[in-house]
Amino acid sequence: MMVKEAIKPVMFLFHLHKIRPQPLANLTKWITSMKDIEDDLNKKISFLSGLVVAFRDQIHTDIQLKPGNHGPCIPAHKALLAARSEIFRNMLDSDGCKAPPSDTITLPELNTEELESLLEFLYSGNLPFDKLEKHVYSLFVAADKYEIPYLQEFCERFLLSSLNASNVLEILEISDVCSNKTLKETALNFIVRNMEDVVFSAKYEVFAPKNPHLGVQITRAFLMDSKSKRINGV
Amino acid sequence: MMVKEAIKPVMFLFHLHKIRPQPLANLTKWITSMKDIEDDLNKKISFLSGLVVAFRDQIHTDIQLKPGNHGPCIPAHKALLAARSEIFRNMLDSDGCKAPPSDTITLPELNTEELESLLEFLYSGNLPFDKLEKHVYSLFVAADKYEIPYLQEFCERFLLSSLNASNVLEILEISDVCSNKTLKETALNFIVRNMEDVVFSAKYEVFAPKNPHLGVQITRAFLMDSKSKRINGV
Repeated sequence: MMVKEAIKPVMFLFHLHKIRPQPLANLTKWITSMKDIEDDLNKKISFLSGLVVAFRDQIHTDIQLKPGNHGPCIPAHKALLAARSEIFRNMLDSDGCKAPPSDTITLPELNTEELESLLEFLYSGNLPFDKLEKHVYSLFVAADKYEIPYLQEFCERFLLSSLNASNVLEILEISDVCSNKTLKETALNFIVRNMEDVVFSAKYEVFAPKNPHLGVQITRAFLMDSKSKRINGV
Repeated sequence: MMVKEAIKPVMFLFHLHKIRPQPLANLTKWITSMKDIEDDLNKKISFLSGLVVAFRDQIHTDIQLKPGNHGPCIPAHKALLAARSEIFRNMLDSDGCKAPPSDTITLPELNTEELESLLEFLYSGNLPFDKLEKHVYSLFVAADKYEIPYLQEFCERFLLSSLNASNVLEILEISDVCSNKTLKETALNFIVRNMEDVVFSAKYEVFAPKNPHLGVQITRAFLMDSKSKRINGV
């Protein structure tokens, strides 16, 4: 009987994922086929992201990307940049009209390491954890500026999963800069739930004068929360 | 009791996929997380295969590919070709030594449509069913010649799934040309099981003189099969 009870949510999931309800024995088939699908998708990703070799080995590159910190230029491919970002596509298109056509794009907001990480992501669709952790803020801003939704989502997911008392103010700030609603709401809620820790921290003293409008939003969110708690008798 | 029996293979699958055995209720969590993984992988594929836009819109192309049927050249990107195939990479590298460096590669074995399909696959990692069905033989040979294992596997899977009495001789022939063991064995087994249909067909009359060594292999495989059936008393 207990086992039967446990099956109910599985059946619900079948329904949720539009899978015809079947006897439990067929579940094995379904699990195996899901693993096969996952393997196939991973193989395709490995094939597609193989393009990163052309970046690493600088094969037939046709554009130089200049970081903002006066570091050396990084060679890349116009076609790849244009395919990943409409902003790059337009920048590269308009180049053709100028005389002489420029073969360099400057990204003033990124230093050498950040630019390298951005490019690695654009070629491979992925980034090692350490690079992501180090550069997530600048990559999130770059994703917003150059309109690369998949990178935005990639960074957003990382920021949501790593949100804690010591980084919540940075995350609130950046979510405001990039107008990311989900991230901003999550950060504000977190602050309200940990109001004392945040507001009495040294970080908040630096944050508040730099972002007065966010200071106001934090105070208001806290008041609204207290009020609703009073009304609900919590 | 019946339900409990049905769970056994599920538990075995957990073991197979190195998942810690858990109460059945946790299965729902696992199924949801597998669906999430699948969604994530599909988003990444969509991001990575977006490069096909650079091919379709001919953005910043730097090489012309010439089909074997005197059709018009198709513009593409050296870096992409080099990343997808070592053979292309070497062809493009050695070009630099020649004077003047050639900006055209001829693929004599492919006609215009076949070459377009090959390129679409190299950029996107995929091909619509109708194009795959139409060009699978030439793509399979091209995958072998230009050493593109993922395309070989893609074609192999299609050929295995579409194997029937009317195409088995073509599939045997091509598996022999490309030295594909799995495909060749499957085709030979199919022929042995449907020996009369195949050997008395009009196709076989054309096939046998063109591929005498395969004719010998078919006859031998049939004899071995008959012998083993006799020994086993089937």
